[in-house]
Amino acid sequence: MKPSGIITLLTDFGLRDPYVAMMKGVILSINPDAHLVDVSHQVKAGSILQAAGMIRETFRYFPKGTVHVVVVDPGVGGTRRLMSLEAGNHLFVGPDNGIFWPLIKSFKHTKAIHLTENRFFLSKVSWTFHGREIFSPVAAHLSLGVALEEMGPPLGDPITLEFPEPYEKDGILYGQITRVDNFGNLITNVSAKKLGHFQKKGPLVVELGNLTITKLSHVYSDAKEGQPLALINSSDWLEIAVNLGRASEYAGLGSGEMIGTPVKVSRTEGKL
Amino acid sequence: MKPSGIITLLTDFGLRDPYVAMMKGVILSINPDAHLVDVSHQVKAGSILQAAGMIRETFRYFPKGTVHVVVVDPGVGGTRRLMSLEAGNHLFVGPDNGIFWPLIKSFKHTKAIHLTENRFFLSKVSWTFHGREIFSPVAAHLSLGVALEEMGPPLGDPITLEFPEPYEKDGILYGQITRVDNFGNLITNVSAKKLGHFQKKGPLVVELGNLTITKLSHVYSDAKEGQPLALINSSDWLEIAVNLGRASEYAGLGSGEMIGTPVKVSRTEGKL
Amino acid sequence: MKPSGIITLLTDFGLRDPYVAMMKGVILSINPDAHLVDVSHQVKAGSILQAAGMIRETFRYFPKGTVHVVVVDPGVGGTRRLMSLEAGNHLFVGPDNGIFWPLIKSFKHTKAIHLTENRFFLSKVSWTFHGREIFSPVAAHLSLGVALEEMGPPLGDPITLEFPEPYEKDGILYGQITRVDNFGNLITNVSAKKLGHFQKKGPLVVELGNLTITKLSHVYSDAKEGQPLALINSSDWLEIAVNLGRASEYAGLGSGEMIGTPVKVSRTEGKL
Repeated sequence: MKPSGIITLLTDFGLRDPYVAMMKGVILSINPDAHLVDVSHQVKAGSILQAAGMIRETFRYFPKGTVHVVVVDPGVGGTRRLMSLEAGNHLFVGPDNGIFWPLIKSFKHTKAIHLTENRFFLSKVSWTFHGREIFSPVAAHLSLGVALEEMGPPLGDPITLEFPEPYEKDGILYGQITRVDNFGNLITNVSAKKLGHFQKKGPLVVELGNLTITKLSHVYSDAKEGQPLALINSSDWLEIAVNLGRASEYAGLGSGEMIGTPVKVSRTEGKL
Repeated sequence: MKPSGIITLLTDFGLRDPYVAMMKGVILSINPDAHLVDVSHQVKAGSILQAAGMIRETFRYFPKGTVHVVVVDPGVGGTRRLMSLEAGNHLFVGPDNGIFWPLIKSFKHTKAIHLTENRFFLSKVSWTFHGREIFSPVAAHLSLGVALEEMGPPLGDPITLEFPEPYEKDGILYGQITRVDNFGNLITNVSAKKLGHFQKKGPLVVELGNLTITKLSHVYSDAKEGQPLALINSSDWLEIAVNLGRASEYAGLGSGEMIGTPVKVSRTEGKL
Repeated sequence: MKPSGIITLLTDFGLRDPYVAMMKGVILSINPDAHLVDVSHQVKAGSILQAAGMIRETFRYFPKGTVHVVVVDPGVGGTRRLMSLEAGNHLFVGPDNGIFWPLIKSFKHTKAIHLTENRFFLSKVSWTFHGREIFSPVAAHLSLGVALEEMGPPLGDPITLEFPEPYEKDGILYGQITRVDNFGNLITNVSAKKLGHFQKKGPLVVELGNLTITKLSHVYSDAKEGQPLALINSSDWLEIAVNLGRASEYAGLGSGEMIGTPVKVSRTEGKL
């Protein structure tokens, strides 16, 4: 695969500490022309699920041949393996802890490698920062065109990740909130495709806590200011929002973590 | 205009979500050599006023021919138009919601275009993320040298923005706080120019809530540690600060939003 | 020294305001090919100590010939001097307020320059933003290969910085917390080297508040989930952590600032 020269970084390291800068320094020491792009460094500490969802949603907007470094690695230095993945003409580097499982499931053909060739690592490897000493230099070498196969043997049994999937029962579709974004929008795990099939039989009703929304909107301004709505968002997920407001506050589900809150989609067919 | 190859990004998207990274991926897919610089992604959600002031203050530090993408777009997908602007040898791309009005007013000659030529957009355009699907690819094409005029017809009636302006009444200059910065400095809408004219007739007194400052300082250390002062800041605005402290806390105006708080400037002429 | 073309930026400016973007615009106006990397902009406002420690820990991961701009400058516009430093084949630019003292102490041979040649500054210099008008253009010129010596005369008496050093008394090693990172890990000023010497005489006991840890671990997962541990971290400092948890909360030292909290290291030799 021809490298694009771009390397993206997705971690739970935050922006206060110099950890991300150290990774970038290591990359640029190997490939001075690498084009570095931050995806996010504010993944919730240790949340493999959040990072797995985010990289799956984001990688496709980059040119083919881009290398994506994903480091949410609570087991760093332990027994978990180091891996690299080729999927959809992109390359991914990170721990084998399930973080790439949604990508592996999304493509018919993927290639996973167990990173063992330590000539592609920094010469001094600490126990607690493989992002800097292993994943960054490996990504830099991949961005220079080193073949994945040179990095180690195939990894045939990558760790899987239980991803919350929506399910249908007695004519009702049950999903959940997977992300609350910067605008307080509530993003669910119900895809447009899933909803399309379900919707064929009648207009939708979306329920979240005490909140009931009786139609799908196209844009936020379909609702009056401060009023709730449901729509298919720009990443093709069912989203609950408030026009010019914050659905996360409107829903009145407490100020805590809303991720995992159930969402119920039903049809008005029987009732009309 | 010869493009500089630089594209800046100013949004209210925050840094937690992958939205900004998606925009960058789209830009780099069209112009792999684009040099991307973040202005800020922490504009208050939906605050057109804040973004309008920020881009006006910042663009001039970049080389001529730079493209500035500004996306604070609460009306996304609704009836608001998409626009691009040439002003002061820089290019700007964003929604026609008043965000570029201070720029248009600042220059004698500007050129505004209604973005209608969808061959410069992504092929699939969602209803809710025009930053990614329209503004980013348009900026990328502009950075490659595509002429503004190819993007659509002139836009002769851009949306205006009411910008709080200071005014003089009975010998007193009334302004307000427009921004509280990272150091707790209180930045007003009173320009050095305005203040210069006003000041000619006598030494100044600056009042904010219960706080009275009786002279203009040059630097923060003109005041003792922990003491308040007023100065003309590096962007030529009247600013109220506390040396080695936070004026936002010192002023005792409550922990809420201080933006819009009145500032009164008078002269000691009559009193001396 | 051959420049690497990379310029890093470390400030206490935060990410909300456009200050960092203005610096980048100034740099790119002078060196359009500069490769800009953020170290952090979330140093605690005015904390010279924090920035001094951070740049010392981070610079070495970048290629030789990199220029590092460090702006934590509470005395901006006052009498403090402007300086540039060559140390370890890297270049540093910032205020002479002690911020580079740990670097100067780390190397046998360093070269410090008092920045006086204002042809390398912006033509208009404000009183309150030397980061934009002096340090950024100087860094840009250095990244283009201008010799340090052209920038001004030698600076022979740089301001020093009192850095908290661990000390040994009656067979006990006394250190302190210098940083709490994004994961709640508590990083001390006790280096691996210091600890190595101390440890020779017997197994270690690390005490922090009511917390007692009786061995050194290699990785976080050496402790059970939620349990505390001590290890030598990836930057060779003694660190107190909680596996899959936050040591900053576990230690029960209050939610305030933990920096400066004493850490005591003793040996079990006498007791066994």
